[in-house]
Amino acid sequence: MYPRGLQTLMAALGRLPGIGPKTAERLALYLVRAPAEEARALARAIARLKEEVATCSRCFNLAESDPCSICADPGRDPGLIAVVETPADLMALEAAQSYRGRYHVLAGALSPLDGVGPQHLRLGELLARVKAQPVREVIIATNPTVEGEATADLVARALANTGVLVTRLGYGVPVGGDLKYMDGLTLSRSLASRRKIED
Amino acid sequence: MYPRGLQTLMAALGRLPGIGPKTAERLALYLVRAPAEEARALARAIARLKEEVATCSRCFNLAESDPCSICADPGRDPGLIAVVETPADLMALEAAQSYRGRYHVLAGALSPLDGVGPQHLRLGELLARVKAQPVREVIIATNPTVEGEATADLVARALANTGVLVTRLGYGVPVGGDLKYMDGLTLSRSLASRRKIED
Repeated sequence: MYPRGLQTLMAALGRLPGIGPKTAERLALYLVRAPAEEARALARAIARLKEEVATCSRCFNLAESDPCSICADPGRDPGLIAVVETPADLMALEAAQSYRGRYHVLAGALSPLDGVGPQHLRLGELLARVKAQPVREVIIATNPTVEGEATADLVARALANTGVLVTRLGYGVPVGGDLKYMDGLTLSRSLASRRKIED
Repeated sequence: MYPRGLQTLMAALGRLPGIGPKTAERLALYLVRAPAEEARALARAIARLKEEVATCSRCFNLAESDPCSICADPGRDPGLIAVVETPADLMALEAAQSYRGRYHVLAGALSPLDGVGPQHLRLGELLARVKAQPVREVIIATNPTVEGEATADLVARALANTGVLVTRLGYGVPVGGDLKYMDGLTLSRSLASRRKIED
């Protein structure tokens, strides 16, 4: 049996998504032999994460402050809102450097198998934003997957009577893919070819 | 850009072996959303690792105390020493539950490309143990890889004039494999079919 301190670490690492027992063992054994400062830096980064990372109360992006730097930026068009599933998707669109509007992070996509229903998404908050501000257009930038398409339908239906223009990312994005793993050019093209969702 | 706290964590995770930037991003985003107690437990386990895990001064296994529980166990045959590359290999042999001797952890294998030479292995300590105690047999249980075989040769040559019987794990173990990933039966068989190394 490994010493208890190592077993504790292996159990904690093994709880991370995609980290199995063998990977947890390998990482823990690496950390035992790693320079003390490297291990300390990792422990500190994890421990401080919750204090240092906030959620923007407008768009629900991860941020250092509230509102986040995108919501607070007067240069970003407040009449244009891109609806994304997760902060990682938002980051992928930002990296494409062709979008100058604001965002709304739903915090997930419809997925009955995982127990995610409409009540788990930040739809009410999106509706409130659209009603409170002069929003011209909502671009639904959920992932081109079954869950993302179902979520896009849901968002479009929720916005149907608000008078706002609702569009969907153009199909430059390959069906079945994940925004996080797409290149900037594909994302730029899909933004340019966005289309209105018909009721 | 992600908030600074997240970027710090991604950089720290990305320094771990086998963790690329995308995996670091995925793990960090998971930890932001994970229950605070889970993240705290992981940070604590990493931070305490160096304090709680010692190295046995006899066999160089990772241990909670010095000497380790195997070296301190009077039921383990002190006349039999299995030489392994790493603590993980030792653990694999222990899990096979068919070895009742003691161990010597070399802390690596010869690997000129990685800059690991004979001076980085705990060979002098092994020689001292063999000379100081009544050791009957040394079983060389390095991995059946190029590096492991070269290391086995080195250990056998170092022990050549000590009068101790030097054996090598039997080839139940497939060439090119890694002890850590082998089943207990294969390991038991290779222990039973161990053979003397000729000078």
